[in-house]
Amino acid sequence: MKFNFITLFPNLITPYFSDSILGKAVKNGIIEINCINPRNYTKQKHNKVDEYMIGGGAGLLMSAQPLCDTIDTLGDTHIIYLTPAGKKFNQNDAKRLSKLKNITFICGRYEGIDERVVESRVNEVFCIGDFILTGGELAAMSLCDAISRNIYGVLGNFNSLNIESFEGGVLEAPSFTKPNIFNGLLAPSAFLKGNHSIIFALKNHMALCKTRFFRPDLYQTLKSPKL
Amino acid sequence: MKFNFITLFPNLITPYFSDSILGKAVKNGIIEINCINPRNYTKQKHNKVDEYMIGGGAGLLMSAQPLCDTIDTLGDTHIIYLTPAGKKFNQNDAKRLSKLKNITFICGRYEGIDERVVESRVNEVFCIGDFILTGGELAAMSLCDAISRNIYGVLGNFNSLNIESFEGGVLEAPSFTKPNIFNGLLAPSAFLKGNHSIIFALKNHMALCKTRFFRPDLYQTLKSPKL
Repeated sequence: MKFNFITLFPNLITPYFSDSILGKAVKNGIIEINCINPRNYTKQKHNKVDEYMIGGGAGLLMSAQPLCDTIDTLGDTHIIYLTPAGKKFNQNDAKRLSKLKNITFICGRYEGIDERVVESRVNEVFCIGDFILTGGELAAMSLCDAISRNIYGVLGNFNSLNIESFEGGVLEAPSFTKPNIFNGLLAPSAFLKGNHSIIFALKNHMALCKTRFFRPDLYQTLKSPKL
Repeated sequence: MKFNFITLFPNLITPYFSDSILGKAVKNGIIEINCINPRNYTKQKHNKVDEYMIGGGAGLLMSAQPLCDTIDTLGDTHIIYLTPAGKKFNQNDAKRLSKLKNITFICGRYEGIDERVVESRVNEVFCIGDFILTGGELAAMSLCDAISRNIYGVLGNFNSLNIESFEGGVLEAPSFTKPNIFNGLLAPSAFLKGNHSIIFALKNHMALCKTRFFRPDLYQTLKSPKL
């Protein structure tokens, strides 16, 4: 899978994919990260890539020409624009997009990008949450990370994909590791006794409690027996 | 404001804060980024920081001792743990947390961290969205970015904070910049004529359309006159 990032700040992106498990996936040729700076394609004076807004408004907007000319060098690719004013990205999107061969992220800066880029070039518009970032880079990196780990060979243990938060619509239960007692805090005694059907029932119960407390919106949508 | 990141992969984090507008904020001493590796504090053999889960389960969990000992070196700080099984972070959280002096992010890896770290040390638990990442680093960086831009002096134009998405519960209207016609696509003609009350009304209408289409959940909650 090839990921293109159209960004004014390639230095913010490349290092994230040079270490850890995604760094390995790059070294093993499972994913490829390609950053392109639209400043290299601008026809504006002084290599500018932004302009004031038509109709007024504070701040600058990334202009259409440098972005579209950059996109048009990329060939067949699925183009995603990141903006707080988009659909919320979720785990189903991550799985769906992990089947593609080539994805391009447009990372906005300043007050965003000229809407005509979205109209004429973009396939999907996403946000990661109800908060504002200084640019689209972190959102694009988050999508790339979430998509990549669903590609076969990226995670060491592909099975761990099946038992994680949001599978089945509930959050993951709390987990505990050695020692059994840490600073006076005991791991749940049922966990220590090793009866797997009891542990399973307890984990399920704790997962439901956690979902009800932290994410009442998810809890509401559950079809399975609730607490 | 000082931000501490407890992470096994400091190299994923530092470069993001070395360029662009947040790089400037670091150089100007408005924010400070401090990465600490819990591996430096582990008492486990072979510098290990993880263990199998009590009660069984696929994968490894970050153990309590290295994380807690790292936290305990930090003094007075507000501790945030990032996990898909947390409350969703939003713009109000970003504004509230921007008033603090010292924030610490715990970045989980593998299957997460021993729940007793959360019980004994953590002040707040957040997620950024309904998707899974390879680690907590991108989520922590996103919080740090969203919080930082609400600190006075970080953004060039502090006023631009007041006209952005989610202010007033609606998404930002589409924006356009020069040229008036790009690739045959015309900017809305009302924008070109410069009557500010008409432009304001049109932007408001487009913002409502966008909110209704992309974020019906936000649109439902609006008290102001709808479309």
